[in-house]
Amino acid sequence: MNSMKTDSSIKREITKMDGHEIKQVTDFLVNERPLTLFLNGQEWITLLTSMGAETYLAIGFLYSEGIIRQYDDLKSVEIDLESGQVDVTTKKNVDLQAKLKGKRTLTTGCGKGTVFYDVLDSLTSKPVNDEFLVEASSILQRSKEFNQQSLLFRETGGVHGCALCDENSIVLFHEDIGRHNALDKIIGHALSDGISMKGKWVLTTGRLSSEIVIKAGNHQIGMLVSRSAATDLAVDLAQQLNMTLIGFARGNRMNIYSGSQRVFIPPKE
Amino acid sequence: MNSMKTDSSIKREITKMDGHEIKQVTDFLVNERPLTLFLNGQEWITLLTSMGAETYLAIGFLYSEGIIRQYDDLKSVEIDLESGQVDVTTKKNVDLQAKLKGKRTLTTGCGKGTVFYDVLDSLTSKPVNDEFLVEASSILQRSKEFNQQSLLFRETGGVHGCALCDENSIVLFHEDIGRHNALDKIIGHALSDGISMKGKWVLTTGRLSSEIVIKAGNHQIGMLVSRSAATDLAVDLAQQLNMTLIGFARGNRMNIYSGSQRVFIPPKE
Repeated sequence: MNSMKTDSSIKREITKMDGHEIKQVTDFLVNERPLTLFLNGQEWITLLTSMGAETYLAIGFLYSEGIIRQYDDLKSVEIDLESGQVDVTTKKNVDLQAKLKGKRTLTTGCGKGTVFYDVLDSLTSKPVNDEFLVEASSILQRSKEFNQQSLLFRETGGVHGCALCDENSIVLFHEDIGRHNALDKIIGHALSDGISMKGKWVLTTGRLSSEIVIKAGNHQIGMLVSRSAATDLAVDLAQQLNMTLIGFARGNRMNIYSGSQRVFIPPKE
Repeated sequence: MNSMKTDSSIKREITKMDGHEIKQVTDFLVNERPLTLFLNGQEWITLLTSMGAETYLAIGFLYSEGIIRQYDDLKSVEIDLESGQVDVTTKKNVDLQAKLKGKRTLTTGCGKGTVFYDVLDSLTSKPVNDEFLVEASSILQRSKEFNQQSLLFRETGGVHGCALCDENSIVLFHEDIGRHNALDKIIGHALSDGISMKGKWVLTTGRLSSEIVIKAGNHQIGMLVSRSAATDLAVDLAQQLNMTLIGFARGNRMNIYSGSQRVFIPPKE
């Protein structure tokens, strides 16, 4: 294993046991630290995150939580890495109490239809309006490049990677101990740089659960790809959101759970 | 792969691609559904969980959030699986607003010491007061049995397993899409059945991050073992909490990050 140090990994002395052999060795651990978000001067929430791209994380999280709708809603974002604090000021005032009430918990209304529709009701996102066609080979090629780029994962085994891809290359790449954080960094980065999600897809090392699908849907992301598994609720939501959901994308294989119309698989020559 | 159906996996039709071959096949997906907790008649929070052991999850979550301190604090726990609702009544009244304010976010005080100590300040748990000695071979043997028992993981690839172990056997075993939920099911089960944590350890498939260490610390669990990685903050907290933290427990190997005094490694004969 090539133990190259990245910003997000920390050198530590640990005890390694292998059979009857015990060694004190230096190893790299993924860094985890609290990042407290202040919104318009008011303490809001503390995220546990890996160092790097904190500003993007803050912006992406604000977007995912429905606090901002576009980059232009922000007045300023100030970050103090020493105290682990981000101060965000928005142009318009935000009723945090009302926003939190609606967003922090996935509230299920009682007695109105099935659980599944209750979850859908809590969605603020509309079905994805972005039809495109990608060759399966491009999806798998990006996944291969993505694995090569996931240095921190290979080094520490403790971090999730997330990438924004198109047919030609990996456009954005971020890592974090939280798979939600990694996606928020991508979203925040795209918003900050004015990068459109049209015709692109998001690649994650994490499992495809309902929350990841909802987060992607909020940002009108048309395709989510993972080398891991999907839950049944994630598949249901992806279908409702007209999103392509692909799991176990490894080597020459993938499972397409939803939205297979966006994947072109050429017949064998 | 042996595709035995468990309660927590759901049969679905999916599109499998392998090279140029496309097939419509039946696959098993891990089940994810919202479970809404009502506390003394008031809607509290919705957890996204896999089916199974919902009562234990609710009790463990209540404990982890500091709502109850012992099983005896509960008056009743009623579960309606169709609506995905758990109604918990406690003997004493609970000021949910105050509890939530203190617990839902890891608040970091400003300007008083390092980030690390701020996180520690938010801990309600005391250092673990449970000294015991386990042979490394027992830890690895339980991990081996644990992997064999993780049926749902092998089947769907999408779920975390968690077990309570002692030197002789796996005492409790639960699975969930969330690694926090899986540990809460173990804690809830142990509380319900009056099973002591003394001299036992918790095994998880998930990464060892600060939140898992805090959750275990709240329940005075002396040892946490994972086949995955640990973060640096998890190690710092485990050291402060006098907890043994072991990662990458696979085959004959393990990394001991903290509390190595509880692990006995006999010299080679």
